[in-house]
Amino acid sequence: MDKEKISAAYQRIRDHIHQTPVLTSKTLDKLSGAKLFFKCENFQKVGAFKARGAVNAVLSLSSEVLKNGVATHSSGNHAQALAYAASLVKVPAYIVMPDNATKVKMAAVEGYGAKIITCEPKQKARESTLNQIIEDTGAVLVHPYDDYQVMAGQATCAYELIREIQDLDMIIAPVGGGGLLSGTALSAHYFGDNIKVYGAEPAGADDAKRSFDSGERVKEQKPNTIADGLLTTLGEKTFPVINDLVEDILVADDEEIIEAMRLIWERMKIIVEPSCAVPLAAILKNKELFKGKNIGVILTGGNVDLENLPFKK
Amino acid sequence: MDKEKISAAYQRIRDHIHQTPVLTSKTLDKLSGAKLFFKCENFQKVGAFKARGAVNAVLSLSSEVLKNGVATHSSGNHAQALAYAASLVKVPAYIVMPDNATKVKMAAVEGYGAKIITCEPKQKARESTLNQIIEDTGAVLVHPYDDYQVMAGQATCAYELIREIQDLDMIIAPVGGGGLLSGTALSAHYFGDNIKVYGAEPAGADDAKRSFDSGERVKEQKPNTIADGLLTTLGEKTFPVINDLVEDILVADDEEIIEAMRLIWERMKIIVEPSCAVPLAAILKNKELFKGKNIGVILTGGNVDLENLPFKK
Repeated sequence: MDKEKISAAYQRIRDHIHQTPVLTSKTLDKLSGAKLFFKCENFQKVGAFKARGAVNAVLSLSSEVLKNGVATHSSGNHAQALAYAASLVKVPAYIVMPDNATKVKMAAVEGYGAKIITCEPKQKARESTLNQIIEDTGAVLVHPYDDYQVMAGQATCAYELIREIQDLDMIIAPVGGGGLLSGTALSAHYFGDNIKVYGAEPAGADDAKRSFDSGERVKEQKPNTIADGLLTTLGEKTFPVINDLVEDILVADDEEIIEAMRLIWERMKIIVEPSCAVPLAAILKNKELFKGKNIGVILTGGNVDLENLPFKK
Repeated sequence: MDKEKISAAYQRIRDHIHQTPVLTSKTLDKLSGAKLFFKCENFQKVGAFKARGAVNAVLSLSSEVLKNGVATHSSGNHAQALAYAASLVKVPAYIVMPDNATKVKMAAVEGYGAKIITCEPKQKARESTLNQIIEDTGAVLVHPYDDYQVMAGQATCAYELIREIQDLDMIIAPVGGGGLLSGTALSAHYFGDNIKVYGAEPAGADDAKRSFDSGERVKEQKPNTIADGLLTTLGEKTFPVINDLVEDILVADDEEIIEAMRLIWERMKIIVEPSCAVPLAAILKNKELFKGKNIGVILTGGNVDLENLPFKK
């Protein structure tokens, strides 16, 4: 992907997304031994960075292509993001969601005027239901990550961060399907001055680590982690970028992720979802690597179920 | 209290506190029918506005008076605030805390280098223990609210808000002992252009409402509310200011407070304590009064026990 695709994405979406704030915390700097700059996508539209990619993808499509609406399957933030993006261009959004998705998430998607189609909470049912919907409606698929315009949209997050904070040595972002991490790596490559990019992944869904280490994309895994935004495997389009441009993938287990999440909640007084705490967990686990560095940390989202939090006595 | 006392307080403490951000939320504006400007003291030093008053009080005292340290009793944010303030001038802080205070709170107080003295969780035990400590050490008492320098310090919060946001019609703040509310009313009076100030109080600790309505300070109550920062009655020094300058005191019950707290958590992705949600609860309960107005809402603090949250399914 070339540089201009990212700056064009930024121009395209900037009126429809928030330029999210960058927060710092002396306590977390002290704990980590580094200087941390938290890019707060939990304050983004729809509560997550996914708004960037979905809006860029939708605004990049012609009205001819969009005329029957957009469709995707998602149990998470991409569902809300695509619903929001479709509302901007006033076309229907068809969102296939597993029937065990929380009411809060469904209500949020419906709040943007999207139509929800529920199915069994299995990958195959999700895909077949989505295909049927696309066939029936003529809607266009907007993939949650394996799409160059989605990747360019997610890249705008690190683009903003690099422009705002000078002298970053590193940026660390969570990795699931790789849309955010590949976009981050591209922005660091094009707009940064020798910024190293790290991925952070839950140990219970470590396909990116295994793919990166072997150089071969792992296509299946049986994820088991609290970081429910990071369950998918890397995409065909995201993997090569990550393989080329990312320095390393670091993993953290669920206990470390929950502890990092608690630190962010207690010390920074902001709400982040578990997936979002994986980078801080990785930093605290690899202090030597990050010691004394200026580190951009992408806090990806803040959509949590307040009735089902992981904090135990 | 004169105007200069507040601007002097601001000058005195500004290098030791955060100029906290003012956040807005389109969703909450829509829900309330007003334009809300949230002054985020949950991001303040020690996680609450109390840092302002304690720092101003301590920095106002002479080194002669301070030489044996400072003392108070508190189970809440004033404990941390005074510990922080004492650390700035490098004098001992003696904090009397009830022995049922959470470990997190005690650890935070000790983190600032203060000495904790525990006692029975009763008002009388707290007072007698504090008196003994003062007698033994020669430390000077810094009251949590009934102190003009504490009031002037708390006033700097609305002072910042009024300078940052033009055209505020109203400001609403929670009321417990009245330090924040009296300070807010004074700043609105001196620095605002006809800004009306409202207090927001839990129905289960409504002494301020009763005092305000009767014109006589209620000195005792048996508080029963989740808003655990607002259990105390108005002070001798805070009551007259509130009686003179505040427009009205509005009450909300615990269910309404929890619902408002949930809205702030879910929609704004920030952590606020229950006491902090009382103003939004009062706004949502009195929509006609606030309709179409520009309203400053003081979010007082974000120190919560994550293992004991009030959100139920």
